[in-house]
Amino acid sequence: MAHDEFAIIERYFSDIGDPAGNAVLGVGDDAAVVDVAPGHQLVVSMDTLLGGIHFPVDTCPADIAYKALAVNLSDLAAMAASPAWFLLSLTLPENDPNWLSQFSIGLRQTADQFNLRLIGGDTCRGELSITIQIAGLVPSGRFVTRRQARAGDLILVSGELGNAGLGLAQKQGEVDLPGDLQSRCLLALDRPQPRLELIPFLREFASAAIDISDGLQGDLAHVLKASGCGASILRDAIPVNSWIEQQQAYHYALGAGDDYEICCCVPASHRGEIENWNLHHPECRLTEIGEVTESGYVLEQGERLIDLTNSQGYRHFD
Amino acid sequence: MAHDEFAIIERYFSDIGDPAGNAVLGVGDDAAVVDVAPGHQLVVSMDTLLGGIHFPVDTCPADIAYKALAVNLSDLAAMAASPAWFLLSLTLPENDPNWLSQFSIGLRQTADQFNLRLIGGDTCRGELSITIQIAGLVPSGRFVTRRQARAGDLILVSGELGNAGLGLAQKQGEVDLPGDLQSRCLLALDRPQPRLELIPFLREFASAAIDISDGLQGDLAHVLKASGCGASILRDAIPVNSWIEQQQAYHYALGAGDDYEICCCVPASHRGEIENWNLHHPECRLTEIGEVTESGYVLEQGERLIDLTNSQGYRHFD
Repeated sequence: MAHDEFAIIERYFSDIGDPAGNAVLGVGDDAAVVDVAPGHQLVVSMDTLLGGIHFPVDTCPADIAYKALAVNLSDLAAMAASPAWFLLSLTLPENDPNWLSQFSIGLRQTADQFNLRLIGGDTCRGELSITIQIAGLVPSGRFVTRRQARAGDLILVSGELGNAGLGLAQKQGEVDLPGDLQSRCLLALDRPQPRLELIPFLREFASAAIDISDGLQGDLAHVLKASGCGASILRDAIPVNSWIEQQQAYHYALGAGDDYEICCCVPASHRGEIENWNLHHPECRLTEIGEVTESGYVLEQGERLIDLTNSQGYRHFD
Repeated sequence: MAHDEFAIIERYFSDIGDPAGNAVLGVGDDAAVVDVAPGHQLVVSMDTLLGGIHFPVDTCPADIAYKALAVNLSDLAAMAASPAWFLLSLTLPENDPNWLSQFSIGLRQTADQFNLRLIGGDTCRGELSITIQIAGLVPSGRFVTRRQARAGDLILVSGELGNAGLGLAQKQGEVDLPGDLQSRCLLALDRPQPRLELIPFLREFASAAIDISDGLQGDLAHVLKASGCGASILRDAIPVNSWIEQQQAYHYALGAGDDYEICCCVPASHRGEIENWNLHHPECRLTEIGEVTESGYVLEQGERLIDLTNSQGYRHFD
């Protein structure tokens, strides 16, 4: 069984995702060719996941494949772009057919789930590293950035925050969660749900959005910096599971990464539309956690006001 | 001096290349947004360069930056697509401002030279690795693949083959080249010229094309396999420097990688256009080295016929 670079690409990665999309030429040439939709703009993002840093090296390969795609899909969701295709660059310490087979099955399932086509990339030998470059489409001018939040906008987050961080703490033996919550948090860590269902809502109503990959506190700080605004958020309004609430362990929600929920800013005039959204999307409920202000960045915790101005999320070069 | 991930991106990578292109939103958000040209298709490619495998880890950072972009540009040239923008994912063992500064200067110069805009990507901490995803544009349907070579087509290569391989041999102390040739070969290795000038010629006349990254012998084999053809090539027709010719060291031209010249197939009816091309492009001369046949893959070396059917170029998982 030949397992050089080309054989690996042909065997494991040549037919992932629905070919009926906009890819004119996919895996196997010097480059891929895609038709671009008239009246649309292309939204592109690229993220690298490293073994031992972004995930333990012994993580199930299908989970790695899922997460590598999910974190990139989450970036598209935050920009309000619909996923179209992706490229994969895979660096592996050795040619392990078992690992490759599990990884490619996971990638295939995930691509099918999110209706994405793998159209190119490469493989190398080295420390485990997965780079995915994803592209999505948005009707021209309808993308959402971090830049347009305005004082008075409501700050909303989707889902529940802190579960992925708590799942990691459980995995690392730092906490011992009850069974039900344990599964929920481990699922949040290994299989985060990119909030693609929010795309139409964001296009219609959001002034700014970001996906929460490094923790709410730091990621919201990026929005405020890019928009030139401040914010006031209410700690007790942050949607968390009952364990975090009981233990007052809000640092999982504020500072731990990997939730991949969406934080967005919406003019207060759209409160009705938010309520309507929540009525129809209980699984992806938007919770109001505060509002955009002219300046300053504070967390209200009961009577206390905590200054978050210099706060940042998880950073790779600290 | 803060040097977390975001500071690194802002400081070193936020303004590389001409902003006047099609990028509506560049570095600094969840994703980048690009306008796509009506009547064009997007051509995308992604390549990873690993320290210690694709280049020695102590290579000058500006050379690494140049080469990382050049190899991706070479893929676009082989598809007959004009470069438009690129994304960078950079993994570094440590935050070394000196290295980063040299790397970003090299990247900036190269991006300016080829009129490309860096529109996004990320940075991580780990073993040195550079992934570039590049996109180019081609008028709809005018891209060139590996698939359409036909028996009777001429096989051409640009420039001179084997210089990069010989440069590597010089670096590794395996050969001792005369001064002039030494510089030429080291330049070929460190600063390969992506053959973008060939794009209009390829669009007009080529039935198939590939860039020579893994050695002529193996790369031409990819074209033949994809096109379902054979080939007969003349060893003595391969354009090489005088040292290779004198030493009969044609394995540098046939088997060593990294030349990034273009190998293309052109119907014999276009001989006049090839001559005309060569007249006007002495620096990027196309040399006829053989022809496409119905089947078989042979190298004529004087009286001998060498069977190349099972030959392949450099492979990462051998």
